[in-house]
Amino acid sequence: MAEPLRVAVAGLGTVGCAVLDLLERNRELLARRVGRPILVTAVSARDRAKARPVSIEPYRWVEDPRSLAEDPENDVVCELVGGADGVALELVRRALRAGKAVVTANKAMLAVHGAELAALAEARGTVLAFEAAVAGGIPIVKALREGLAANRIGRIYGILNGTSNYILTQMRESGRDFATVLAEAQRLGYAEADPSFDVDGIDAAHKLALLAALAFGGRPRFDAVFVEGIRHVAPIDIAYAAELGYRIKLLGVARLTEHGLEQRVHPCMVPVEAPIAQVEGVFNGVVAECEDAGPMVFEGRGAGAGPTASAVVADLLDIARGTRLPVFGVPVAALVDHRPAPMSTHRGSYYIRLMVVDRPGVLAEIAAVLRDHEISIEALIQRGRNPGQAVPIVLTSHETTEAAMTAALARIGALASVLEPPRMIRIERL
Amino acid sequence: MAEPLRVAVAGLGTVGCAVLDLLERNRELLARRVGRPILVTAVSARDRAKARPVSIEPYRWVEDPRSLAEDPENDVVCELVGGADGVALELVRRALRAGKAVVTANKAMLAVHGAELAALAEARGTVLAFEAAVAGGIPIVKALREGLAANRIGRIYGILNGTSNYILTQMRESGRDFATVLAEAQRLGYAEADPSFDVDGIDAAHKLALLAALAFGGRPRFDAVFVEGIRHVAPIDIAYAAELGYRIKLLGVARLTEHGLEQRVHPCMVPVEAPIAQVEGVFNGVVAECEDAGPMVFEGRGAGAGPTASAVVADLLDIARGTRLPVFGVPVAALVDHRPAPMSTHRGSYYIRLMVVDRPGVLAEIAAVLRDHEISIEALIQRGRNPGQAVPIVLTSHETTEAAMTAALARIGALASVLEPPRMIRIERL
Repeated sequence: MAEPLRVAVAGLGTVGCAVLDLLERNRELLARRVGRPILVTAVSARDRAKARPVSIEPYRWVEDPRSLAEDPENDVVCELVGGADGVALELVRRALRAGKAVVTANKAMLAVHGAELAALAEARGTVLAFEAAVAGGIPIVKALREGLAANRIGRIYGILNGTSNYILTQMRESGRDFATVLAEAQRLGYAEADPSFDVDGIDAAHKLALLAALAFGGRPRFDAVFVEGIRHVAPIDIAYAAELGYRIKLLGVARLTEHGLEQRVHPCMVPVEAPIAQVEGVFNGVVAECEDAGPMVFEGRGAGAGPTASAVVADLLDIARGTRLPVFGVPVAALVDHRPAPMSTHRGSYYIRLMVVDRPGVLAEIAAVLRDHEISIEALIQRGRNPGQAVPIVLTSHETTEAAMTAALARIGALASVLEPPRMIRIERL
Repeated sequence: MAEPLRVAVAGLGTVGCAVLDLLERNRELLARRVGRPILVTAVSARDRAKARPVSIEPYRWVEDPRSLAEDPENDVVCELVGGADGVALELVRRALRAGKAVVTANKAMLAVHGAELAALAEARGTVLAFEAAVAGGIPIVKALREGLAANRIGRIYGILNGTSNYILTQMRESGRDFATVLAEAQRLGYAEADPSFDVDGIDAAHKLALLAALAFGGRPRFDAVFVEGIRHVAPIDIAYAAELGYRIKLLGVARLTEHGLEQRVHPCMVPVEAPIAQVEGVFNGVVAECEDAGPMVFEGRGAGAGPTASAVVADLLDIARGTRLPVFGVPVAALVDHRPAPMSTHRGSYYIRLMVVDRPGVLAEIAAVLRDHEISIEALIQRGRNPGQAVPIVLTSHETTEAAMTAALARIGALASVLEPPRMIRIERL
């Protein structure tokens, strides 16, 4: 059997510990699969004494994770520290410069610094692998870079944040509101004390930037992703969605349009019978619309120690087997600088909910504004009479532009008979 | 840019032509992705003059595909001739012996001769790739061999034949019977004139043998797969399935049990809310139950020119990039000869439909037989009274063994009050 692959693990949170556990538990199986042992030579974390689900006694302890970058005792550095900058970024930069392979689960770092790090890896002829950074255990990075690499991709979209999907699923099933379900998710450990990373769409946007880079051969550009979270999704909108044949999901969507690369994360109404609508709870799902292969659906656990460790170790196995591929599927020099398509140019259909005074002529006013912006109505629900009082009006539009819809909603919101700011949720045609 | 990868294509049916079309249409994109051009140097098929959707004028014509094996003008042979033996097998053997890489979509050949061919490839240090042989465009071979390679797999199952799934979906949606829907599928080109390969489960069994080899590190053993097709599935069973919360799917299922490797293809009742139940029409779906990553669901087009060509070309791209992996995920010497678990040892739940004379005491007779075989009833539907006439009794069992159920059904079928052979459909717990 060939020389062992020597791995240093930086960061011993739940994922780091799960990686150690997996490598130890499946040691023989993995060695048989790749023809050589995978050996952990050193570990590092903030607090050596912290209670952990695995013993770190068998491994050499290193006080400063950054020193693993130049440590001659390892071939690969597993960066599981986290954070877009700081220690993680310094460690990865130094390790790549030292010619070491790097495996990371750090979506934030790659979504921002991915192109720079890919160039570093390429210059040193080494590997920067990040299967665990997108959709946890789902091997979607490999699928895009290799398995579907024969195809042009028209659109890629997915449910990329399990916490948000859990909250939306619970809201739909129980009829409770966002704040109540979030509080419960926090008690159950499905949401962080500060949930904004998840529920405001930032985590999903990091992942979308990476998916888009792989699917469209561009540099990852987190700053070019339009992001809107799920805090404003109300039980009444979930109920109307069901009535209209939709479910509300926090989707990340990327596609090339005549205006450039559109990247957006926001709540979407998707047809209830679409595969992505069936991805519920903490699961993630990704759909790649391939020119030749057709739509490809991937579903699985998008977070958690086990699935993330599965992806980290898959990258280690690739490295052990000698697989060497460009970080984002093509050499850095061939990555395209896609022009970001402004969100105002987005074309799509829209769901609008208005609280209006129930009196004759209100609908005519609203319809006139929409007509002025060349927006045509596809469906309208106006139910329950309550003369002189507030009643909801719900409508869906045919395809229009974000610019037209934004302008129309500003005018509609200013109408005297419209009592609350209009609520808008984009509809995704699948 | 590096030297081109020189490819010879043997077999110019719909898939062969789609491969030529894809390589030509995406020539620059593919070259950018792998850093070198993919060049078709020669083609071969039975009939040069046949009308085809692509021109074969640009390629050197070779009369006998087998001569491509030793042709110094190519590095890779694409075997798209088909058939478990004959020309395809001879071509692949000779090409591998000559040290050439081989890409094939030939599930029948690999399910039977896979271990021998893998040994040949390994002995010559070359590649035998077969992404297109299982589930068409879905990159499931790569997912099992690489993306999920950190995991032990508990069970793998899937809808592996689009024709059968189309027929079952149509039957469910329209209430029509098998023969009627099959005839329509034949008219529409979704089923062959001789449909037995698809509807009798043979094609799915070929694919299952390959999935099981990858998932459990064994030699593919088509002869060890239990196979039962969908001809006996009746509209009334589909209706009862719906009532009980199930859909009927032709599944291939493989798992390691205490009795060995269980491999089976047969109609299954699966919970309607399970992801695999939502895979409808000509789509394929595969679920790998991974120890660490959890259940992973893959869904996409499992047949057709475009999806199959996508998978063939993905294998070519891997070869162009220099990826060299063991054919079934581990070196041939490390492949396990799993003992086939006899179907009689299968444990599961069962759906039974009986046509009985409607008179007192019939149910007591049936219940007594089941009790004798230690089979307990989970649910029972006995509806519509018609004294002295034939009425259906439907029941589902708790978990039992295939041996017990087979014995019980033989006795039940022999009861005077049971008017037709019992119908049995296995229930898969997901």
